[in-house]
Parts: sequence; structure tokens; C-alpha cells
Amino acid sequence: MRIDAEMMQHHLDALYTIGAEDGGGAFRPLYGTAWAAACEQVARWIKDAGLAVRRDAVGNIWGRIDGTEGGKAIVTGSHIDTVRHGGRLDGALGITAGLAALRALTEARGNPNRPLELLVVCEEEGSRFATNFWGSRAIIGAINAGEADSVVDAEGVTLARAMRERGCDPANIASAERDDLGVFVELHIEQGSILETEGVPLAVVTTIAGAVHLEVVVTGRPDHAGTTPMDLRRDALAGAAAMIQAVQSIAAALGRPAVATVGKVRVEPDQINVIPGRVTFTVDLRHAELSGRRALEERIRSLCGTIASERGLGIAIQTLHERPPVPMDRGVRQVLERAATEAGITPAALVSGAGHDAQVLAARCQVGMLFVPSIAGRSHCPEEATDPAHLALGTRVLARALELLAY
Amino acid sequence: MRIDAEMMQHHLDALYTIGAEDGGGAFRPLYGTAWAAACEQVARWIKDAGLAVRRDAVGNIWGRIDGTEGGKAIVTGSHIDTVRHGGRLDGALGITAGLAALRALTEARGNPNRPLELLVVCEEEGSRFATNFWGSRAIIGAINAGEADSVVDAEGVTLARAMRERGCDPANIASAERDDLGVFVELHIEQGSILETEGVPLAVVTTIAGAVHLEVVVTGRPDHAGTTPMDLRRDALAGAAAMIQAVQSIAAALGRPAVATVGKVRVEPDQINVIPGRVTFTVDLRHAELSGRRALEERIRSLCGTIASERGLGIAIQTLHERPPVPMDRGVRQVLERAATEAGITPAALVSGAGHDAQVLAARCQVGMLFVPSIAGRSHCPEEATDPAHLALGTRVLARALELLAY
Repeated sequence: MRIDAEMMQHHLDALYTIGAEDGGGAFRPLYGTAWAAACEQVARWIKDAGLAVRRDAVGNIWGRIDGTEGGKAIVTGSHIDTVRHGGRLDGALGITAGLAALRALTEARGNPNRPLELLVVCEEEGSRFATNFWGSRAIIGAINAGEADSVVDAEGVTLARAMRERGCDPANIASAERDDLGVFVELHIEQGSILETEGVPLAVVTTIAGAVHLEVVVTGRPDHAGTTPMDLRRDALAGAAAMIQAVQSIAAALGRPAVATVGKVRVEPDQINVIPGRVTFTVDLRHAELSGRRALEERIRSLCGTIASERGLGIAIQTLHERPPVPMDRGVRQVLERAATEAGITPAALVSGAGHDAQVLAARCQVGMLFVPSIAGRSHCPEEATDPAHLALGTRVLARALELLAY
Repeated sequence: MRIDAEMMQHHLDALYTIGAEDGGGAFRPLYGTAWAAACEQVARWIKDAGLAVRRDAVGNIWGRIDGTEGGKAIVTGSHIDTVRHGGRLDGALGITAGLAALRALTEARGNPNRPLELLVVCEEEGSRFATNFWGSRAIIGAINAGEADSVVDAEGVTLARAMRERGCDPANIASAERDDLGVFVELHIEQGSILETEGVPLAVVTTIAGAVHLEVVVTGRPDHAGTTPMDLRRDALAGAAAMIQAVQSIAAALGRPAVATVGKVRVEPDQINVIPGRVTFTVDLRHAELSGRRALEERIRSLCGTIASERGLGIAIQTLHERPPVPMDRGVRQVLERAATEAGITPAALVSGAGHDAQVLAARCQVGMLFVPSIAGRSHCPEEATDPAHLALGTRVLARALELLAY
């Protein structure tokens, strides 16, 4: 079995030019012009590889080789949409590597026993609509009635209208559902720097971490910065700074894979000479285990409450969003580990802190993921890159795993 | 000598209705309609009190009683402009109390030996233009050539045009300068809560604290909140939070009158799931002694630098604004203390953390200030209030001090 790494690099380069932006990176939001051009391009490549191509009702593209013995499909792939100023590999890698793997397999081994499919997911990033896994949710039949009519983009265009502009029928979304999927495996970049730091070229994902998003509002008293002595202040920002410190310390003390991030902060009145009377900040908490995440959240809530009461501040904590962790299938992980071992690699076992379609598809089939290192951990930016040797390795392991699963 | 406290309260009430805003408070920005109406009203009261009224080139109003022996003038008063949603007393107290004091003195004692004047300063708050003591700077001849033409309000109106709309001549600003001022004393609210906390009804100000405004920019790396372990982060906000904590702690450890406030914070990219790559915050530092303030600033700069380097963060600290502390005149303080003692009060000796016209006028004459307590320390808001007994006491002490100085 020979992977055509050169063709794969050519495909990555070609995709990266579609939606290229001033300021670097590519932007291919769902149902946009660049998205449509990329879909057409990929569909041609799939056809050229000898696979049967079809597009489902939401615009997911499927390339298929029937299996001599039938059964549920073995699927690989990734999403074709990007964030603004997105990089060359996020999503694109899983598509081009999956295509290279299927091409290599059919060339070397002919038709598989079980059906083999390449899945090009129409949307995963939520860059245009707050769709939250639109493509994979359609596949598992988890799109709500009326959702396409109620969700709008920044210009007020509904999802339904955007679909029609690309020849997709919103009335027909249910037809995208699949109940004949057996396994979904995806090769993705890590988007973090653990592999690079540890000098390991490949990881088998153990779990996609769940996330909780909290909003914390701290209230004090907006006094004059010049006339209010330090000991008579009720400074909402001083309290929030202590809480932000506590959030970091609690997650750091728990150790990997616990992470906690304060990403957004709003200070009121936000004047140079007024003591802040109100501070609002967000907390993003992730952990591979639901119990670990709950412990993290409880400690943070408790310590923030203590800090507030010690300082005479008000505090209100609201849950904005909650998503449980999704473990990868044990059997698929073993296949991925065996394929890696055969390639001479002892893969790392990694928790994915980022969300992926596999966590949605897990509701319908066995799922697994491979990660290759991200240089300097960079992702969602033009600097997103991976050593070509790591890309080739990941693709080879993916292909071997598909072989083990489908032949 | 009898202070007409009832008339003074009536004057305060009347002024507070001029520029009354929806949502509470009054707003009388420089050269606005409400400002002009308030000036007219106050000019009438001054005339009714038997003083000679004149308006200078920038719109400061002067009420004068000549002294039988001549010499440099003994002046009291305050500013007539307000912040948005300003309170009933900031500025208005010094004007109405000064008027009540001059009325009581002339009724009881007739003409003074030295000229006595009431000064209604046209602007102190900087609410419309970034004028920074426009009224008092005109009096000491510190307005720069061309300043009236270059400074604009939020609507793009120049100071010069705003002046002309009120019949003030920008070409004539130099005529507002006075070189015949002997003493300026002002009664003001504390705008903080030290007097209330300590149960003291009056303070003689020792110094108007200087202020330094710093802007601190902390740079890290904007990584993915899910995929970057705590130990591999360069989180600009985590560093900034430690610095904000340090700023508070250093000022608190130095003790009164040192104050340090972080009032403004900007986080970039300010997304819930991205580790902050850059945080910009301001620091407002004040101290009565230049040496104390410098020590405060040096400790803060040094500790912020240490925090940044420990965390692998970049840091840049820029001075936005610097104003030295201005000590009040020792002789004037003694007169104010004597007047307070005669009223049966041992006044507190207080540093003013807020800026006042006295710090500008100190360049031309001896200056002193009296503070009365602010209920709950509130100021620059509709809740701004002082116990009427404290207003009456402050006015009585002011009148007695003017008597000691001018008769």
C-alpha cells in the first residue's frame, strides 16, 4: 500500500487557496461561495479516485466503495468549512488524508469486505451560523424541526435560505440521516502543543473533553479612584482578579487534562479614575471525565464565592453552555494503536480538548481519532502547520486502520 | 455673623434643577445651555447679595467687595460645571457656601480690609472638552496659544466656537489672567468616606495628591482554550490578574494616603474559548508625597515586570499622564484650623485624592481647602449627599476663615 503524499500535499495546497483571505488564512463559511467551490473541488477528486460521489440534503459529501460482504460502513473524513483566517490543515487534513488512504487501499487491495466511505462534513466550526455540528447532527438525525428557519447569520440570512442558494432542500434534511454507519475514524491536527512538547509524532484520542461555559458577574461599588482609601473599597476588579487567579490555580493543581480559561472580561464603568463597580467574565472548563469536570466546576464556584464574601462583593454565576465528555470507542482505539505500532510508533493517548464531529457521530457508530502534532500548538490561524513527515505518518496509520476495519 | 443656611439649601436645590437629567443627577457641561442658565442664575444671586459681578473672557464669574485697605484679594468659590449625572454638591457647594459666607460677613462686618471675591469657575470636570482646569488655567495665564481652536468636544465643536456661542471671545483669553490674588479657599465635599468612617465632620486639606496614569500592555499567546494544557500556556490575562492583585496589595501595604486603581481592562481576542493573547490595563496611582508616589510606581513597575518574566509574558508600561502633588499653604491651613477650633471642632487633616482648582491656583496665590463628609463616600452620582448639619458647619468655618483673612 503506497500513500501518494505528493498528491495529498497538492490537495491541501489547492484547498487552502479556496477562500484565501487578505491578512492570511482561508475562510470557507457554510454555504458561502468559497465553501461551494471547495465542495465541487473535493467532489471531483473523490470521483477521480474512483469512488461513487453523492451529496446529502445538508451538503455533506459522501464518497463510497461498496463492500463485497456489505454491512455497516467504515467511514473516514472531516469538515470542509473553516474559521475566519483558518489554517491549512484543520478539517482539510482529515478530508485529503482520508482520500489518499482510500485511494491507496483500493489500488493495493481492491474492493473491501465492508463498505468504505469518505465523509466531507459540511460544517463543524460554527463560523457563519450558530449551528453547532450541523453536518454531523444531520447524519444522526438530531436537527430540530424549524431549526433551519430560525437560525440566521450575521446578515440575517436564515440557514434555510442559505441552503436553497446551494441547491440543498431544507424540507428534506431528515433524508441525510444514516443508520448504516459502523465506524468513523478521523485524522486531525492536535491544535495544542502536547505532542510537540513530548516529542511524540502521533496520538490516539481517548476522549473528547466536555466543556462547561460559565459567566461570572462580580459586583462592588464604583467609587472615586482618588478619594477612596484602599481599606474602604469594594473593588469588583480586585475581586475578579483574585477569582481569575483561582480559576487558573485550581485547574493547574488538578493537572492534565483539566483546563480552565477566562477568555472574556468586561469592566464597568471602565474608566481610568473610577474603581470598577462590576466585572463580568467567562470561564471555559474542560476535562475528560464528567466527575473531574464537576469537581473542577465545584471548586471554582466555591472559591469564587469565598473570595466575593471575604471582600464584601456580590457574585452571580450562570451556566451558559454544557457539553458532556465523549469517550472514543475502545475497539476502534485498539485498531488505531495496532496500526500505529505496525508503523513503528508508540502513540500518545490524548484527551481532545477541542470538539470534533466524532463526539456527535458517537451517537450512531463507533468512533476514533488520530492526532498529529501542531507546530508550536498553533491552530485556527495562518501559522497552523504540521511537519510533512507527521502528516504522512498519520495518513499511513489511518490507511492501515481502515484496512484492518474494512478488509 | 449669621449664615442663612435656608437660603443656601434653596440655592443648592435651584442649581440642581438646572441640567437635570433623565435617570437622575444634573449635567452642566462647559458652554452648554444648562451651564449658561446656571451662570445667569448664580450671577443674579451674587448681584442680589450686593457684590459687583463680572464675567471674564472664558466665562468665570467673579463677585467682588472692595477692601478698605486694598491689597491682593481673598477669594472663595468653586466650579459650576458637572459630570454627567452629577450630584447636588460637587462644585455647587463651594459656590453657594461662598456666597452665603460673603453675604453673612458683609451683613455682620461691612466692608473688609482686603478685597473679598466669590469665584465661580467655568469648568473643572472636563466633561465636554478635554480641557483640564480651563477656568483656573485662564486665571493663572496657563492656556496655550491655539488651544481653544484645537480642542473639540464629542460632536467636533471646537472650544473656540463653543465660547463664541456664549459670548466669550477666544482671542481675549489672556485678559482672564489675574495677578492680584492673595488667597483662595474652597469648601468641597470629600467625595470619599474617610470622614464618615472616622466620625469627623470636617477636614482641612493638607495636600492635593498628584496622580500618575500608567497603561500596561501584557502579551502572551492566544491559544485554544481546549487543547492547550495549563502548563503550556502563556496566558496574558492570568499574568494581568496577578499584576492587578499586586497593584492593590502594594498600595494597601503602603497604607493611606497611597491609592492605586486598575480602572480599565481590555482583553484580546476576548473570546470565551481562546486564551487571552494580549491584555491592556490602566493604573491610577496617587500619593500626597512625590517620593511616596514614586516609590509606589517603582514597586508596581518592578513587580509587574517580575510577574511577566516569571510567566514568559511580554510587558510594556507607558506613562499616560502625570501631575505632581500640590501642598496647601501652611498659613491658610492654620487659619482654617483656627476657624474650625473656634467652632468647637478638631478637624481631620486629609489628603485630597481628587483634583481641584486649588492645585492650579496655587501657582498664583496661597490656597487652602475644607472638606465636609460625603454620605457613604458617594460622589459624581445622584446619591451624592452630605448631612445638612455638616454643610452648615463647613460654611460657618469657611466664613470665619474668610473673616480672619480679610478683616
